[in-house]
Amino acid sequence: MTNFLDYRDLVGTDPDRVFKSNLFQSDKILVGLNCLTPGQTQDTHTHAEQDKFYYVIQGCGEFVVGNDVQQADSGCTIWAAAGVEHGVTNTSDQLLVLLVVIAPAPQKKS
Amino acid sequence: MTNFLDYRDLVGTDPDRVFKSNLFQSDKILVGLNCLTPGQTQDTHTHAEQDKFYYVIQGCGEFVVGNDVQQADSGCTIWAAAGVEHGVTNTSDQLLVLLVVIAPAPQKKS
Repeated sequence: MTNFLDYRDLVGTDPDRVFKSNLFQSDKILVGLNCLTPGQTQDTHTHAEQDKFYYVIQGCGEFVVGNDVQQADSGCTIWAAAGVEHGVTNTSDQLLVLLVVIAPAPQKKS
Repeated sequence: MTNFLDYRDLVGTDPDRVFKSNLFQSDKILVGLNCLTPGQTQDTHTHAEQDKFYYVIQGCGEFVVGNDVQQADSGCTIWAAAGVEHGVTNTSDQLLVLLVVIAPAPQKKS
């Protein structure tokens, strides 16, 4: 695994679902991208054991974290602690690219 | 602790050392900023038990990770796994702002 990556090399789109790519992964942490086309939604969900952090690299979205609903654009950071419901919708007309960090990393499905 | 923060509200400088501010912290993960003025260096060091991830928000620096030495600018990501020596120097004439994630979070000194 390389130690240096440019996020732009991992951006992509999927018309049917949020596009996800991994930058780095260990047992302690998963770092990746979530890319949402205009109107796409990552439905609200909860990680029972993992804290999650988003950094908005480009675009703008409406984030739900617990009872909070807020617009966030480039430069904003969003924190969803373990057990707190969270999700996001791309409310803009441009691609929404999110740096996503989950710790500890989710267990791989066997 | 709020769930939403703008990194620009946490940027700062310190003429004597790397400026550090925290965005979010739990036992699982520490998310913060490191800000280096032109010429400032974060000396190479190692975290025995923690994986570390940098995202270059603005500026440009020379990163050392193990035997790799690379320039990285806005949009680049850098991975330093537990036990791997790493450090950074701001080689530009502008402020270098790094999003830094450490997992699990370092133990607070008592």
